Amino acid sequence: MSAPLMQAVVHTGAGDASVLELRQVPRPDPGPGQLRVRVHASALNRADILQRKGRYPAPPGWPADIPGLEYAGEVDVLGPGVTRWKTGDRVMGLVGGGAHAEYVVVHADETMAVPAGMPFTDAAAIPEAFLTAWDALVVRGRLQAGERVLIHAVGSGVGTAAVQLAKRLGATVAGSSRSAEKLDRAKALGLDEAVNTSDRTAQPPNRPTAFNVILDVLGAPAFAANLEALAPRGRLVLLGFLQGAAGELSLEPILRKRLEVIGSVMRTRALEERIPLVAAFSREVLPWFDGSATRRLGDSAGSEPLRPIVAAVHPFAEIAAAHQAMERDENFGKIALSW
Amino acid sequence: MSAPLMQAVVHTGAGDASVLELRQVPRPDPGPGQLRVRVHASALNRADILQRKGRYPAPPGWPADIPGLEYAGEVDVLGPGVTRWKTGDRVMGLVGGGAHAEYVVVHADETMAVPAGMPFTDAAAIPEAFLTAWDALVVRGRLQAGERVLIHAVGSGVGTAAVQLAKRLGATVAGSSRSAEKLDRAKALGLDEAVNTSDRTAQPPNRPTAFNVILDVLGAPAFAANLEALAPRGRLVLLGFLQGAAGELSLEPILRKRLEVIGSVMRTRALEERIPLVAAFSREVLPWFDGSATRRLGDSAGSEPLRPIVAAVHPFAEIAAAHQAMERDENFGKIALSW
Repeated sequence: MSAPLMQAVVHTGAGDASVLELRQVPRPDPGPGQLRVRVHASALNRADILQRKGRYPAPPGWPADIPGLEYAGEVDVLGPGVTRWKTGDRVMGLVGGGAHAEYVVVHADETMAVPAGMPFTDAAAIPEAFLTAWDALVVRGRLQAGERVLIHAVGSGVGTAAVQLAKRLGATVAGSSRSAEKLDRAKALGLDEAVNTSDRTAQPPNRPTAFNVILDVLGAPAFAANLEALAPRGRLVLLGFLQGAAGELSLEPILRKRLEVIGSVMRTRALEERIPLVAAFSREVLPWFDGSATRRLGDSAGSEPLRPIVAAVHPFAEIAAAHQAMERDENFGKIALSW
Repeated sequence: MSAPLMQAVVHTGAGDASVLELRQVPRPDPGPGQLRVRVHASALNRADILQRKGRYPAPPGWPADIPGLEYAGEVDVLGPGVTRWKTGDRVMGLVGGGAHAEYVVVHADETMAVPAGMPFTDAAAIPEAFLTAWDALVVRGRLQAGERVLIHAVGSGVGTAAVQLAKRLGATVAGSSRSAEKLDRAKALGLDEAVNTSDRTAQPPNRPTAFNVILDVLGAPAFAANLEALAPRGRLVLLGFLQGAAGELSLEPILRKRLEVIGSVMRTRALEERIPLVAAFSREVLPWFDGSATRRLGDSAGSEPLRPIVAAVHPFAEIAAAHQAMERDENFGKIALSW
């Protein structure tokens, strides 16, 4: 008798979006403490593009050929010893790979409940964007109410999550984008100051300074301007190197202004670190996705419920088109995928 | 009637040690909340050398021409409203400048009691070295018991303070120096691993890695090796740029290992920040200078009392010779100055 199969996105090589194919692969079974989740939706991340190009292999212990870093779906099978969830529970979460498939196996303690009433295609847009933004702003960046934060690439999944979280935390929020349209849409999420980085002539007079926290995905070319824009004791949280990691750089402002440069990446974290992060996020942030719980807090400023921003939903059969859409960099928020 | 005068070290220009002179200058008077301290001893810092060369002016609010960043002495006159100290109390502390004089005026809340029985020439070697090391290791670097720390320039005032504090905190301590003799003396303070940076041939096999905290004073040329030597989530605390602040640098390990690069400098801090730092240090660290209080803690490992390491005491009249001694970089610990 052959093993049960499932459909999954598979890398047939390294290159452009044409290397991606839907294939039949063995369906994984949960071990002790694990769950098998029937994936209803997932979302795309820049890491999926890098992995497709062969530049970002999956960390050890995760499928090497099946991409996908987040999922939303239903609990399908409980592994031995799991009591926290039951079959049919609606869950979502992060994985190190393998989420672009009909089924994924995860540890029972690193999945989260999907907010009541939320469609799976919205829920799948939460884990990477909001966990990354929350970890960067709060856990690593120690953002306080009343502080000023600058969020680069504010139209990205992480950017749209960070704007909402920072407002919610009582910060004043500036955001950068090369797109005036994305900046306008970010304003609807609460953005206080828009910085159009394609408008170079406007930079010198308009450049905002004295930020307490900056979230950056650009890297070395933006390093000097970021350090300059930080207030004393400011924190620069690095989340990516879209424009490169190296260059002729000066550390001088770090000492003079007593800054902190902090690196953060989700994917390579060990299970022992992901579990407490997910637990804290579930406790402190997930209630903010629920309109009724939020209103109960009674604060007028920043009391809008959080919401995942989904630019488009592609069927998994059109995975190549979804990758191409992300590479055009036109989407505001996340690109979701659905079976 | 002319104003009372005092002797002070004065910069007569910018240059080598010959620009330093003892002169008669007006004696300062304390304002509300301040103390005038009769300075019995002070110590030299690298910042004094830089300031003498014209490259590190005093921050606003401090004497521009009189150097000196730390003092130990007796309370001479109380300003209006001061109740915390009385005339004759033995005190020590940091200032933004002006300590290389017979008198210095300080805020009553940023001075500390000299440990009982300690000579002023020892006490004057405490403030910069131990406050800097404690702030870098504990407040900014968040060093935990059981972690591994690397201290560059381990024979410096800050280095000799950091070795003792790190051992006391239960860390495993490595230290670097170009001098085998300084490394041997640091071992007597508790150093676990000696890294001789003049012994280039021994570097590749012997280079220690996986440090949780590194204290660096070298800057850009050491940046790559420091990032490489950090464990995941490690903290590189920058305290100086003795070898330069800029260069061709890669930020890549910061993201991959989720590191933190933290800048720290004492001198430019505002009074509002120095006061709570001094209060916390007085509460948490000063008792460790007292042998009886330390023994009461009852832990066998690292329970030696802390002690300021004084390489030599120069009279203020020989201030130029003291600067020259520091520039030769031969001293293990601090160079003290005495009236």
